[in-house]
Amino acid sequence: MEMVRVTFEPEGKTVEVRPGETLLDAARAGGVFVASICGGDGICGRCRVQILSGVVDAEPTALLSREEIRDGFVLACQTRVTEDVEVAVPPEARGDGAQILVDEDAQRFRALVPALGAATEYPVAPIVSKLCVELPPPTLQDYLGCQERLYREIRRRIDAPRMQMGLKVLQSLPKQHRDGAWRVTATVGNRGETIEVIQIEEGDRTNTAYGIVVDVGTSTVVAHLVDLISSNTLEAEACYNSQIPYGAEVTRRIIHAEREGAGPLRAAVIGDVNGLINTLVTRSGVELHDVIACFISGNTTMFHLLLGLDASNIRKSPYVPATTNPPPVRAAEVGIRINPRGILYSMPAIGGWVGGDITAGILATGLADTDRLTMLIDVGTNGEIVLGNNDWMLACATSAGPAFEGTGVKCGMRASRGAIERVAFAEDGSIELETIGGGDPRGICGSGLIDAIAGLFEVGIIDRSGHLLPDRSPRVRKAAGQMEFVLVSASDSRTDADIVVTQPDIENVIRAKAAIYAGAKILLESTEHTFADIDQLLIAGGFGNYLDGRKAVLLGMIPDVPVDRIHFVGNTSVSGAKMALLSIDAFRRSEEIARSATYYDLITYPNYYEEFMSAKFLPHTDLGLFPSTVDAIGVPAANGAGRNAQ
Amino acid sequence: MEMVRVTFEPEGKTVEVRPGETLLDAARAGGVFVASICGGDGICGRCRVQILSGVVDAEPTALLSREEIRDGFVLACQTRVTEDVEVAVPPEARGDGAQILVDEDAQRFRALVPALGAATEYPVAPIVSKLCVELPPPTLQDYLGCQERLYREIRRRIDAPRMQMGLKVLQSLPKQHRDGAWRVTATVGNRGETIEVIQIEEGDRTNTAYGIVVDVGTSTVVAHLVDLISSNTLEAEACYNSQIPYGAEVTRRIIHAEREGAGPLRAAVIGDVNGLINTLVTRSGVELHDVIACFISGNTTMFHLLLGLDASNIRKSPYVPATTNPPPVRAAEVGIRINPRGILYSMPAIGGWVGGDITAGILATGLADTDRLTMLIDVGTNGEIVLGNNDWMLACATSAGPAFEGTGVKCGMRASRGAIERVAFAEDGSIELETIGGGDPRGICGSGLIDAIAGLFEVGIIDRSGHLLPDRSPRVRKAAGQMEFVLVSASDSRTDADIVVTQPDIENVIRAKAAIYAGAKILLESTEHTFADIDQLLIAGGFGNYLDGRKAVLLGMIPDVPVDRIHFVGNTSVSGAKMALLSIDAFRRSEEIARSATYYDLITYPNYYEEFMSAKFLPHTDLGLFPSTVDAIGVPAANGAGRNAQ
Repeated sequence: MEMVRVTFEPEGKTVEVRPGETLLDAARAGGVFVASICGGDGICGRCRVQILSGVVDAEPTALLSREEIRDGFVLACQTRVTEDVEVAVPPEARGDGAQILVDEDAQRFRALVPALGAATEYPVAPIVSKLCVELPPPTLQDYLGCQERLYREIRRRIDAPRMQMGLKVLQSLPKQHRDGAWRVTATVGNRGETIEVIQIEEGDRTNTAYGIVVDVGTSTVVAHLVDLISSNTLEAEACYNSQIPYGAEVTRRIIHAEREGAGPLRAAVIGDVNGLINTLVTRSGVELHDVIACFISGNTTMFHLLLGLDASNIRKSPYVPATTNPPPVRAAEVGIRINPRGILYSMPAIGGWVGGDITAGILATGLADTDRLTMLIDVGTNGEIVLGNNDWMLACATSAGPAFEGTGVKCGMRASRGAIERVAFAEDGSIELETIGGGDPRGICGSGLIDAIAGLFEVGIIDRSGHLLPDRSPRVRKAAGQMEFVLVSASDSRTDADIVVTQPDIENVIRAKAAIYAGAKILLESTEHTFADIDQLLIAGGFGNYLDGRKAVLLGMIPDVPVDRIHFVGNTSVSGAKMALLSIDAFRRSEEIARSATYYDLITYPNYYEEFMSAKFLPHTDLGLFPSTVDAIGVPAANGAGRNAQ
Repeated sequence: MEMVRVTFEPEGKTVEVRPGETLLDAARAGGVFVASICGGDGICGRCRVQILSGVVDAEPTALLSREEIRDGFVLACQTRVTEDVEVAVPPEARGDGAQILVDEDAQRFRALVPALGAATEYPVAPIVSKLCVELPPPTLQDYLGCQERLYREIRRRIDAPRMQMGLKVLQSLPKQHRDGAWRVTATVGNRGETIEVIQIEEGDRTNTAYGIVVDVGTSTVVAHLVDLISSNTLEAEACYNSQIPYGAEVTRRIIHAEREGAGPLRAAVIGDVNGLINTLVTRSGVELHDVIACFISGNTTMFHLLLGLDASNIRKSPYVPATTNPPPVRAAEVGIRINPRGILYSMPAIGGWVGGDITAGILATGLADTDRLTMLIDVGTNGEIVLGNNDWMLACATSAGPAFEGTGVKCGMRASRGAIERVAFAEDGSIELETIGGGDPRGICGSGLIDAIAGLFEVGIIDRSGHLLPDRSPRVRKAAGQMEFVLVSASDSRTDADIVVTQPDIENVIRAKAAIYAGAKILLESTEHTFADIDQLLIAGGFGNYLDGRKAVLLGMIPDVPVDRIHFVGNTSVSGAKMALLSIDAFRRSEEIARSATYYDLITYPNYYEEFMSAKFLPHTDLGLFPSTVDAIGVPAANGAGRNAQ
């Protein structure tokens, strides 16, 4: 069959495909990032691209305005190629996938935010470490073999009743012992209760040992490079998960893997992780060879796809994964490029829908070690909620969607340079913005979005059901058939386009916050608690450098508890995994946490849907639940107002 | 450079080599077995081949007779090719290397010979085994992952506090659990104190599980196929070690590996092991996939070469190996073809010169569990001797040479079909022979050689220094410049050549027996014992189906202890390894044995050389040490007689 050529601008990348394939398929085949939330079903409208030359076969859609259609815009997933074409991928569809930027946010969360009075301290003892040993040269009386001689000396230094060594290391021992003049550095890693000698270096090489921690989120992948000697974080980096084109949510990705194989999804995320590692070591001048451990923290589906495990049962009740506690494996076996004998660890998960990232969060916040009733909400594409203390823990997951990570929102972006992270509405109608890294904004990250929508609600530009009210501000307009609020005009934007918050954006955020709130409420009720019982409410997530707890309450995203009990604790998936990397005791504690926490399936709660629907108002149908919101802005406008205005 | 072609008959195999290479190089390159004891130094004369056509460049040698030179015989190692040639490899140079025959001997030693009253019994619990588990299907209350669910059920059946699983097995779990309707068979192997799940099969597959035991000797490789369900040995097979062309003794092979790399040596023995395994499974109709464990028992150098470990320090004081206790490894990683996830175990060694085969011997004979003072002599290319009981054990090695395994002897062969295994000299001068498998003989195995030389000594055809006395028998003759005794004439031989015992053969045997005797005497003296203290004297080795203890004493090979204390215990390297394969407790005991036995270096004994030289007579310089020999045959002829006769 004759092939046709699709050239994507501005990258200038040309892909050959069979006639009849969609532009989205072509983009995926060529490794060109084109945003897609619905996974190619033609319903999200995020894969808008512009045809520069050539004729295509495009399905009709209501997601494009007449103007856009006239300008050659199509939805990449709904457009089949029949001849050679040139396509422009506009900035908002490019996302950050193809370009890794410094993640200042991630850097700022190097250490744990001291939210809790009693955050547990673990002794520093990295899960993989180096040990310089002096071996007494053999004699006729002390004729132990090289392996046994090495084990004896290691055991004089550390508690290692069970040791093992791969054949390749064993093969290298006789020469290395002698070339190193009986002084060698052993890299030792914990595998269960066994110490593995991973590699031997001649002489003392204990001054170079690094580990990588990767938070593999559904939307965002964040990696930190950690010096295992000083415990310092040297570099941090993040990118969007390249699996996004296969579906914005984990369920869609699992279905894609079932239908068409998990290989491309696996390759996508491994490419992301390797890309991040490469950036980190290059920027810090670290040798890849000296990176001896990698810690993966992510939701259960994410580490299944990364490890090549079948995730399909996770999406079906009773949501049983292949494993909640993957064994340590050689990173190279998975395709992750660090030291070829370096070990890949995974944070143990609690269940199919509450992953290792949440275990990391419990570890990092000390939730399992405090007697104060604590709620931890990890706001990501799945919003996971843990309620408990040192006696019991209950965890659930809500499908919040990717709004807070910037991929479910028209001008959304992840919390990186150029993202609007704070929004304040002044009395005079003007708007003050703060942008990560300063300068003109490129889009809005999660915390900026919460600020913006809370502000719109506070000043009455949206009503209780979230509808934009055009008569309340000149910035409200109708474009491409839908209402939107212009936060930044094109002239002040780095993308040369208006930065807007659209009606669907607001609806996405309300759906997300309603899911989270309903989950929190059900967890409390099913343990016979009320909001007032919560001693600490911890908000985790990578969606900004701060989260204004007051505004989250204002929106009804989190329960109306006193503001001093609310703490924003940042990316605890990273900080918890870092603790496990740096302390074998912390890792063992994470295994206990994963075993002892109980998964709670929200769907089985009798009134789940009612709870969710009731929470789809600002702040909630039942204003009695949000006295502080009422205190702040009075009884807000009824939802009818917004409805009339449309 | 133009290549020349060397064709080896009777195989008809043609090899292309560069002009200037030796015929032995060409044979090795083409996988044609040509015997060589000296490793190519031109001093053993075993690589005699006949040039059928073409001209070669042969070094002068005294090892060929004028007649042989006229008939076109050359030493393959001393002959360089310059043009295309055809070469005949005569039967005596072919050995058995290229042809694997049934080893009836090995089959007869299926079970331990009950030599000892108190041979320890170990519970049957194979080191790798299969377990059929019924998994309760998951529910919302019991949502354990597949791995954790499997571990839970396994732990209900066996004691397995520490478990592990490779990524490939984990990847297969979700599908196999469901396809097997929650009934699967787990193959579990012991790795140290951890239980590894090696593979999962759907349904109940516990009726097929096999293991292989391989005794990797310097000269002979013996393999047994064991049914792990019934503990029965199904098949046995043996072949010469294909490393022999690189040197008859371990030291030469180590030197060869140092100079030219260990790769060819490793490939040679792995080829042997795979060939044997292939024969065993084919003959027994077992699927290779169902062979889930392989146990290697061999001297320390042999398992080093097999595992790709550097053996070079074994030949230099203090003889330190890479390891005495190699970790279990995936057999496939080493290149041994059983189930791709099957495990390769090695019997732990005592030191560089006392290997896992001796540990196996101690285990099999129960030496470490008896309070009776026991001496175990393993007669092989190295003669290892252990002295001790349940309180202490001392072990040494002597360089006996390969005479008893048939490769250091002109008409020698290993104990397989066609080998003369018993020789009796009748009063009338006639000779009675027994051949393994019956029929005309092809050569002489170790026990036949001991019988023959003891008989020659007993009837006075050789004197105390081992010289053949031509006036004592018409069968003694001079051929190719040396004396020999015609045991079988060409007409009664299956090789169509006389089967002879030559003067150098006798000298080889005397050197071997002297080395063994000297070692035994020194072990006793250095522990302040005498021969009279020995409660049990056990002779191990694969050199025949029986060994006549009386004749071994007659020759002065073993100390003169009462015959009822002498037991021939067969190939204890195989039987001990089989015990370890079939019982994890037996394997753990072997590790204790290897750790607790002490290596004794004979060379450091002040009078070692004197002891050795004194033992180079029949039975010994000091006849007072062998009263039973003197009783049997009177004071034998002095060595002067033999010397005069030459």
